[in-house]
Amino acid sequence: MKVQASISKATIDRLPLYFRALRNAQEEGLDIISSDELGRRLSITPEQIRKDLTSFGQFGKKGVGYYVNELKKNVSNILGLDNHWNMAIVGVGHLGAALANYQNLGMLGFQLVALFDRKPEVIGTTVNHVQVEDMERVSEIVHERNIKIGVITVPAAFAQDVADRLISAGVKGIWNFAPAKMCVPDDVCIVNEDIFTGLSTLSYHMVHM
Amino acid sequence: MKVQASISKATIDRLPLYFRALRNAQEEGLDIISSDELGRRLSITPEQIRKDLTSFGQFGKKGVGYYVNELKKNVSNILGLDNHWNMAIVGVGHLGAALANYQNLGMLGFQLVALFDRKPEVIGTTVNHVQVEDMERVSEIVHERNIKIGVITVPAAFAQDVADRLISAGVKGIWNFAPAKMCVPDDVCIVNEDIFTGLSTLSYHMVHM
Repeated sequence: MKVQASISKATIDRLPLYFRALRNAQEEGLDIISSDELGRRLSITPEQIRKDLTSFGQFGKKGVGYYVNELKKNVSNILGLDNHWNMAIVGVGHLGAALANYQNLGMLGFQLVALFDRKPEVIGTTVNHVQVEDMERVSEIVHERNIKIGVITVPAAFAQDVADRLISAGVKGIWNFAPAKMCVPDDVCIVNEDIFTGLSTLSYHMVHM
Repeated sequence: MKVQASISKATIDRLPLYFRALRNAQEEGLDIISSDELGRRLSITPEQIRKDLTSFGQFGKKGVGYYVNELKKNVSNILGLDNHWNMAIVGVGHLGAALANYQNLGMLGFQLVALFDRKPEVIGTTVNHVQVEDMERVSEIVHERNIKIGVITVPAAFAQDVADRLISAGVKGIWNFAPAKMCVPDDVCIVNEDIFTGLSTLSYHMVHM
């Protein structure tokens, strides 16, 4: 599918929300959903939804709504969810283990093929059928197993070093959970997660409601 | 501080990003930061930043920039980060334990005062100095310890039941990590977290870069 050159970051950030809402609608057995109904479910204005989805082509029928299956398939396609990527998690603490057990990884096309840690008592254990390897072997194993996505769940002080090693071994996408400012080359994608955001949004609403 | 009645959800969602960027700027020793520089750091247009911050009053000086300390203090105040809330986590698996150990909870004014689980082998253990209680005691303990925030990290099938119990015991804010569609009364805030979003954003960029 051809996508317009300049889609705003805000629009891209909303696509996963559309995908989730469409998957829920599909599970409820809906064939058609209006932008009004999508808007109600997502707290986004119907105008914004129509504008966002127009950026990617015409998926709706005026006055009727969007065909749920078709739109979901198209959004999935735009998000690249039908691709397959080998993935490694570096740092097998509580968060790393929680991610390794996350059931939707496969559905999203992310295949967990390696886990790394530096603690001797963690190396050699298995999480979700994957054995934890010594951090020292990152370069070798990333290369061998054709790993393209690296998930960083180490303390902030080690995050940049881990990213550098992953990238020089061939990783093209970093999903970073360390609260650290990271530098990566232009040809590498990075998505920074920060649970701070959710917590402060909750705080805002508690104070202002 | 008086806040305009209708701030858009999108603006509110960006406030934690501004807070983080300002905290980083403060740590770097910057006194003043321009909307251009903030925009560069956050991948948000300077126009959007000026518009967002204008909703909350005038914090900048035209042609100079924003005073970092003052703006950070104001954003913190708007986000309600100077309040204090007693918080409980329900579900002490890997994710619950990771959140219980999250160091910024205190800085954000969230005080972890209770943990709950239903597994006998988990009840009675401690995480980050807080003892895990039997899930059956949720109502009693939430009431006793004046808990206003409940964090839900149980499997999706149990999430609504946990939310109902927390709310009827007095919780006013739910931070939900279960991939479940939740119903809460109008006077209760809910923030749903979904790691799916980050992963699919990464997927999008891998495909389209």
